[in-house]
Amino acid sequence: MAKPTAMTLGEEQICCAPLVAAPLAQPDAAELARGFHALADPARLRLLSLIAAQAQGEVCACELVEPLGKSQPTVSHHLKVLYEAGLVDREKRGTWVWYRVVPERLATLRDLLDPTR
Amino acid sequence: MAKPTAMTLGEEQICCAPLVAAPLAQPDAAELARGFHALADPARLRLLSLIAAQAQGEVCACELVEPLGKSQPTVSHHLKVLYEAGLVDREKRGTWVWYRVVPERLATLRDLLDPTR
Repeated sequence: MAKPTAMTLGEEQICCAPLVAAPLAQPDAAELARGFHALADPARLRLLSLIAAQAQGEVCACELVEPLGKSQPTVSHHLKVLYEAGLVDREKRGTWVWYRVVPERLATLRDLLDPTR
Repeated sequence: MAKPTAMTLGEEQICCAPLVAAPLAQPDAAELARGFHALADPARLRLLSLIAAQAQGEVCACELVEPLGKSQPTVSHHLKVLYEAGLVDREKRGTWVWYRVVPERLATLRDLLDPTR
């Protein structure tokens, strides 16, 4: 899978200092905001929770349409946003695409909100 | 502490809860998405980090304009979004308004992305 899991800006890994440690630099803020943007939608939060809740760690996109209660194109759109934000990874097998969460990316966003770090 | 079952892939634990504990219900997802929406903007992330980085725990809005490099109306707009999302609290003293972060609200959003809970 070519999708990087760590946030990078060019070759440089973006800092992930928590919000309380120091004011964010503009490039870091822009990259992190993209991650939060992907979470700023109820359908995408529910999709992400559905993917993360799979006991086997991954789920076929075909199994996400009915529980979300949205059309397949709508589900595909939201999955694409999650993928492009680095929050999920995907693998095509035959007709369908399988999705799994990217824990490192979730951790990056989570750590930013951690006042104890 | 009742920990949700962690997801495993083979023998390897890969992630994640509370996202894995159960798919989010629509009302919860909508409320949480509002919180993430407030974080989905570089200027607001930088503002929040500036407020959170104050050693005394609060900051006058008048001190946020210059470091953010935006106009005062723009700063006021973003502060309002943060306030309405419950991420900061505010108190008017004389001419100016003072801001502080709401750690419990940050924790709610953070915990949603926390693989150890």
